[in-house]
Amino acid sequence: MTTSRTLPMTVPAQDLPARVRIHEVGARDGLQNEKTVVPTGVKAEFIHRLAASGLTTVEATSFVHPKWVPQLADAEDLFPRLADIDGVALPVLVPNERGLDRALALGARRIAVFGSATETFAARNLNRTVDESLAMFEPVVARAKADKVHVRGYLSMCFGDPWEGPVPVHQVVRVAKALMDLGCDELSLGDTIGVATPGHVQTLLAELNEEGVPTDTIGVHFHDTYGQALSNTLAALQHGVTTVDASAGGLGGCPYAKSATGNLATEDLVWMLQGLGIETGVDLDALTATSVWLADQLGRPSPSRTVRALSVR
Amino acid sequence: MTTSRTLPMTVPAQDLPARVRIHEVGARDGLQNEKTVVPTGVKAEFIHRLAASGLTTVEATSFVHPKWVPQLADAEDLFPRLADIDGVALPVLVPNERGLDRALALGARRIAVFGSATETFAARNLNRTVDESLAMFEPVVARAKADKVHVRGYLSMCFGDPWEGPVPVHQVVRVAKALMDLGCDELSLGDTIGVATPGHVQTLLAELNEEGVPTDTIGVHFHDTYGQALSNTLAALQHGVTTVDASAGGLGGCPYAKSATGNLATEDLVWMLQGLGIETGVDLDALTATSVWLADQLGRPSPSRTVRALSVR
Repeated sequence: MTTSRTLPMTVPAQDLPARVRIHEVGARDGLQNEKTVVPTGVKAEFIHRLAASGLTTVEATSFVHPKWVPQLADAEDLFPRLADIDGVALPVLVPNERGLDRALALGARRIAVFGSATETFAARNLNRTVDESLAMFEPVVARAKADKVHVRGYLSMCFGDPWEGPVPVHQVVRVAKALMDLGCDELSLGDTIGVATPGHVQTLLAELNEEGVPTDTIGVHFHDTYGQALSNTLAALQHGVTTVDASAGGLGGCPYAKSATGNLATEDLVWMLQGLGIETGVDLDALTATSVWLADQLGRPSPSRTVRALSVR
Repeated sequence: MTTSRTLPMTVPAQDLPARVRIHEVGARDGLQNEKTVVPTGVKAEFIHRLAASGLTTVEATSFVHPKWVPQLADAEDLFPRLADIDGVALPVLVPNERGLDRALALGARRIAVFGSATETFAARNLNRTVDESLAMFEPVVARAKADKVHVRGYLSMCFGDPWEGPVPVHQVVRVAKALMDLGCDELSLGDTIGVATPGHVQTLLAELNEEGVPTDTIGVHFHDTYGQALSNTLAALQHGVTTVDASAGGLGGCPYAKSATGNLATEDLVWMLQGLGIETGVDLDALTATSVWLADQLGRPSPSRTVRALSVR
């Protein structure tokens, strides 16, 4: 019985996009929180397998200072090993001009900056106020755009913050607009601690639209800490969002959230999208096999329910 | 930091019900699949705690032959211990007239019969064809109704079947209508192997409406095998459904599904509903504490993401 080949049954729902672009973050957002050192060769094979499974955007690594994210300290070694991957976008995280220099020197054509909607997280994660971090990003984005490099602006803590509690929508909108005003090509709205619910998601999206940020520049990035990631994604799709961040096997997790549960698992997302008849280009069996392989490398099972269900034989 | 008291932030969404009745199935659907014997006293305390957390419907046990479900063989001992629970419905599963006799003798006022949308599951679970099982239920429902006992009709394998694959909507509608024609007061549509997706859910609900089964008689019962339970629930709420089955701590699991993942966790559901501003009457902290307590009794952690996140201190 190979359930993935016959199920889910495809039954479209009304008013949903025909196609969704999955922005795969497992190799960066996922692996940056691993406690054990993942060999560069394993990372390279992981990214190659993700690309081969049909994903069109695979975030590769981060050019943050190795002191802050030792797990991704091998970015210079890793990125050139991906040069043979064709037709798949490989964005990299870049915190500042020094990181941009490193990324551009290796030929990166898509970068991402990482902002915060709250002052507490900005202080803890970036050692700056929100406005100081925007000032830090300004020359990064400007130089990238001058070089025709695509820029994504991550915005974390868009729904709740572990220190500040609920985050007001207008506060998120202000920083989101500021990131777009810097010249970002797209935004990724992060529910870093996984507390969002569907009405909150749709209200934030509507407010962003009101303030001139169109839906087609917005991606959503949900964590599954409270099991809410997929229903929030459905709410975002119903609003018209067509870019969804997810992590193969559900890798990852915010070190500031209270539990280890991580990103929305790409396989759980693909199951829903396949059932809805929404195109992603992803081969669910190939992707699941990749996550099972990586789980073996990491020495612990994937938290993705779909991966676990499909890999029980 | 007690996240559950400040988060999720309540932001209603459009066109959702103001109130949802949670039909808690942990003590029956959950515990019937446990490998170890759960003492009757633990079950009684579990149900008392569930009722005290604000749940208004707590399915208590099953009057099926002890040979088939040995875990619930203590129904005669358990049910009288719940007599002091006030204002909370305590339905019990009843497979046939013998089970009905046992339930009525103890004063049960709500029963449930358990049908199948597919022939293979009917044969394996009930040792009958679908129509033979309906014939078995007929006198059960008739006698219950004559006694003014409320009758719920479970219908399993409504979306997929592990042997038959996808289950055609018209096939589900036929059996659902037959159960209602017998005199059932409500239906519970079961995604026993967890394969449903939102469009499939809404299509089945719409077809049932077309065939004369109104939404207010329909409950939904999702399993989280592929991580789809909560997004399917959201889709059902958007259709107008106001009765949702869930299992405290995510207890349970279908022995015929490929993995051990169980029912939609009540805590994950309450998190979403609380965020949406939908009334349930449930105190999430009390419910979570109950699931943590039961997990200790069972000797393994709850699979509910919300329970795990809220119980990390």
